[in-house]
Amino acid sequence: MSVDNRPAAPRRTPLAVAAKELALGARRGILATLTAEDGFPYGSLVEFAVLPDGDIVLLLSRLAEHQHYLERDGRASLVIAPSLLEENAMAKPRVTLVGRAEPVTDRGRYAEIYVQAHPGAARYLGFADFQFYRLHVERVRYIAGFGQMGWIKGEAYRDAFAQA
Amino acid sequence: MSVDNRPAAPRRTPLAVAAKELALGARRGILATLTAEDGFPYGSLVEFAVLPDGDIVLLLSRLAEHQHYLERDGRASLVIAPSLLEENAMAKPRVTLVGRAEPVTDRGRYAEIYVQAHPGAARYLGFADFQFYRLHVERVRYIAGFGQMGWIKGEAYRDAFAQA
Repeated sequence: MSVDNRPAAPRRTPLAVAAKELALGARRGILATLTAEDGFPYGSLVEFAVLPDGDIVLLLSRLAEHQHYLERDGRASLVIAPSLLEENAMAKPRVTLVGRAEPVTDRGRYAEIYVQAHPGAARYLGFADFQFYRLHVERVRYIAGFGQMGWIKGEAYRDAFAQA
Repeated sequence: MSVDNRPAAPRRTPLAVAAKELALGARRGILATLTAEDGFPYGSLVEFAVLPDGDIVLLLSRLAEHQHYLERDGRASLVIAPSLLEENAMAKPRVTLVGRAEPVTDRGRYAEIYVQAHPGAARYLGFADFQFYRLHVERVRYIAGFGQMGWIKGEAYRDAFAQA
C-alpha cells in the first residue's frame, strides 16, 4: 500500500465544521470594533445573517457607534456564544470570527438573505440610515470548552461551508 | 426663588444607575481585547465579578488568547447583554464597560470577591496559570433599547455605586 494513493487530506477540519454549525445556528452575537477616537476594542450587540460562504451580513444603523467605528476602521470580530447564560457556559462551545467589515452596495441580494434570518427587519430595510456590512472572515477562534480550542484559517472555515 | 438655592444636581444619572444594575445582575459577558499580532478587536467569553466601586474583576488563564492580548495592551471592554438570546434582544438593555485592564497582585482580596460570584472558581484559584485582572472602567455605553442610549462618564458610573 502506497501512501501516494491515499486521497488528499480534506482541508475541512473538525473545528471548522463545528464553527460553521455554531454560526449557522445563531442570529445574534457581540461585534467588536475599534473606537474611532482612541482605538479601544468596543463590544456591542448585533443581529446577523450568515452568507453561503460563511461570511457575515450585518445591518447597521448610521446612528450606532459601531457603524461609525467601522467606517473609520473595518477591523472587527463577531462572537457567537449561544451558551452565554448557562451556568456551565465556560465548558460550552463558542466561536470568534475575525476579519474586516465593509459596506456593501448590492442591497437587494443582502436584503434577501438577511430577511430570511430576521423577518422583522423587512420593515426598516428601506430606511436610508441602515447600511449592510459584510464581515469577510479571515480567521476563526473556536473554543469547544476548557482546554479544547484552536485557530482556524479563513480558508478552512470557508471549505467547511463549501462542502455539504 | 433663586436658582442659587437649589441643591447641586446629583452626578448620579438614571443611565448610570441602570448600568450599575445590569452589571450587578450578571456574571458572564464578552470581553473585547486587541490581538497582539495585528490589533484586531477580539471578543471572547469571560466570567467576572463586580467590585464595590463598579470596576470589574476577571480571572484569566495564561493559556488564553485574551490574557496574552491584555499583557501587551490593556485596552478592553466588557459587554453585558443578559437578553442576548431573546427574540426581542435589540429592544432590551445592554451595557458596554470600556477601560483598561491590568493584572492585580492583591490576590487574597480579589479571590474573596470573585469566589462569592463564582464559587466553582475556588478549585483553580491556586493554579499558577490563573491571574486576576481589574478592568478600570473609564466610560460606559448604555443601550436601553431602540434609540434609547447614551454614554456615561466613568465618574457618574462610580457615583452610582457609591450611593446606595
